[in-house]
Amino acid sequence: MALITFLSDFGTTDHYVAAVKAKILEVNSNLKIVDISHDIESCNLAQASFTLNAVYRDFPEATIHLVAVNSSTGPNDKFLGLKLDGHYFLGNDNGLWGLLSANEASQVVNINSIKPMTSTFPARDILAGVAAKLASGSTLSDLGKPVKEYKRLLGRISRATKKQINGHVIHIDHYGNLITNILQEDFKVLSKGKAFSIKFGRETVHHIQNSYNSVDSGDAVLLFNSLGLLEIGISHGDASKLLGLKFDSPVLINFEE
Amino acid sequence: MALITFLSDFGTTDHYVAAVKAKILEVNSNLKIVDISHDIESCNLAQASFTLNAVYRDFPEATIHLVAVNSSTGPNDKFLGLKLDGHYFLGNDNGLWGLLSANEASQVVNINSIKPMTSTFPARDILAGVAAKLASGSTLSDLGKPVKEYKRLLGRISRATKKQINGHVIHIDHYGNLITNILQEDFKVLSKGKAFSIKFGRETVHHIQNSYNSVDSGDAVLLFNSLGLLEIGISHGDASKLLGLKFDSPVLINFEE
Amino acid sequence: MALITFLSDFGTTDHYVAAVKAKILEVNSNLKIVDISHDIESCNLAQASFTLNAVYRDFPEATIHLVAVNSSTGPNDKFLGLKLDGHYFLGNDNGLWGLLSANEASQVVNINSIKPMTSTFPARDILAGVAAKLASGSTLSDLGKPVKEYKRLLGRISRATKKQINGHVIHIDHYGNLITNILQEDFKVLSKGKAFSIKFGRETVHHIQNSYNSVDSGDAVLLFNSLGLLEIGISHGDASKLLGLKFDSPVLINFEE
Repeated sequence: MALITFLSDFGTTDHYVAAVKAKILEVNSNLKIVDISHDIESCNLAQASFTLNAVYRDFPEATIHLVAVNSSTGPNDKFLGLKLDGHYFLGNDNGLWGLLSANEASQVVNINSIKPMTSTFPARDILAGVAAKLASGSTLSDLGKPVKEYKRLLGRISRATKKQINGHVIHIDHYGNLITNILQEDFKVLSKGKAFSIKFGRETVHHIQNSYNSVDSGDAVLLFNSLGLLEIGISHGDASKLLGLKFDSPVLINFEE
Repeated sequence: MALITFLSDFGTTDHYVAAVKAKILEVNSNLKIVDISHDIESCNLAQASFTLNAVYRDFPEATIHLVAVNSSTGPNDKFLGLKLDGHYFLGNDNGLWGLLSANEASQVVNINSIKPMTSTFPARDILAGVAAKLASGSTLSDLGKPVKEYKRLLGRISRATKKQINGHVIHIDHYGNLITNILQEDFKVLSKGKAFSIKFGRETVHHIQNSYNSVDSGDAVLLFNSLGLLEIGISHGDASKLLGLKFDSPVLINFEE
Repeated sequence: MALITFLSDFGTTDHYVAAVKAKILEVNSNLKIVDISHDIESCNLAQASFTLNAVYRDFPEATIHLVAVNSSTGPNDKFLGLKLDGHYFLGNDNGLWGLLSANEASQVVNINSIKPMTSTFPARDILAGVAAKLASGSTLSDLGKPVKEYKRLLGRISRATKKQINGHVIHIDHYGNLITNILQEDFKVLSKGKAFSIKFGRETVHHIQNSYNSVDSGDAVLLFNSLGLLEIGISHGDASKLLGLKFDSPVLINFEE
């Protein structure tokens, strides 16, 4: 039996999360559901895609990821089941899937095509049942008709030249750490033997650490995190507040000749 | 094995939720516990009953619903196990059960009657063990002596005449959507072929939509939600804040002749 | 199969909690993980140790407690697996273990000694796999080399004489209740037949209740809670705010001769 993960902007105060789980467990009470987060800001696809992207590969292949963000829907909206990078994804046709991977889905079906219905709570009424059946052994082809085109938003990527990497803050975490879209692999290739300066807000730093505890409390610490992305923190402090940086703030690395 | 759901006002910062789960799993580590919410406001029975009512029917019949809201207790307080509408409910004799269903419980037992104890943490010390045993195959009769009378608070219901439905806001969700006690079935019967106006706060609207995305961002959207209740939202906005409505605010539908 | 509990300061907004669970379930998808809390304040070892201490004994013996608080790490930091009071604990060598129990661990191993690695996300990359293997039947000896010394912070304990018990607030819970380090057993021994006064903030009280509902709404209620510790609350109110007390505020019991 495959695992099911669940990511939403439902919050944890209402009955919404439990209603979706109830419908999954009604199909098969042995299924295992792992919450990713339900604290995504309402309709924030950038935050949802960052969060899912940061974790889905940690799950076993063929895990089913149910995503209910911006899931209220108009009468013509589609619900998709995708196979992408060896994992299954279920959710709206809202563009999120293009932000998850540069690869195209190997299979896409309309999961509201066999017995089409309208619902004001599609995560419960459409996605939950499909997730449960898929986890219990059904195939995507069993669950919907093939779809040729789907929306793919494109994520903001950093630009790298020989002299410079030009990136942005793409996520601020619970601790206030600033996660950028600057890739460790780009930095490795371009930095060989060169001095460099990293600029963000009013700061300029010349070092990248290997761990948060390499600097004193209150000092800025830059490191490549477990996702291979440049992260800016303040040791035992909230970098976002202390540095005044937020989502989309620019971060620049200049390499000296 | 039956599922156990868990609803409380314990919050998620302390050890309280985990302590109850530990005691359930100590009896039978194969049991499955589904959190409904632990963010009910302290002692808010209206919120607790709305939330449980909105979701319990989504679970399979014979699911066991453990409720710890306002569960601190005086020396004479009772703890009940009820069978109601095919589901089991465990909690204080605090009136909540009358808010859940118009039906009477088919069975009610005092679950602190066989080896009575006092505890400042009854959810852990009384409810958890009973939930675990019930889910593992015991019957209510095994777990307590029959009770003839129990407290039943009555929920505020909407009043419907040929000319008017007179309701109230009974819940504000995580998004700020206002959920009323106006029933879709009442509206269907009374609205046939008639024009109508819906008044709430300073607004008067004349249309009910089928989906949140039927209106432009920032506009009010009224629809009958997945619970069959009239819900007032603002597309991509917080209706409670923007309209100045809150719990118990009146909502009125007038039908023209 | 043993249960795994999970306590962290990761919050619930990011992917961190799910990433650790993914790595546990990748080893063995049948394992059961129970969240204790992920809302510990960043790096607050006092809060983490109170919370874990308050609940770990409610779990069956041999449960595995994964703790990721202050888990960012310098290059020389150690990760430990301990057997203590019949339970297993996994986490940093940050002193927390001394706060959990007056007993010494019966076994301690360095769980990053067999294939040592550095990681900016050790809960995912080191602790999760060890927890999964331990829960699936491995022994501590399989998972790391023995460690002779480990950090043990000492908790603040109350001082008791014949005339006085001198304690402090050690935790403020979700309701604002103040939990002190004054032990019920000390009070029992010293109070025999004597009148007493309890002083905290500007208040002096002369009674200890058996339940929260023994006093009127708005009145202070003192009782020995389910942990055997003196707790100060306000019936249907937030004691911390209303009394102006916080972590470490003194609470004094004087016994009259």
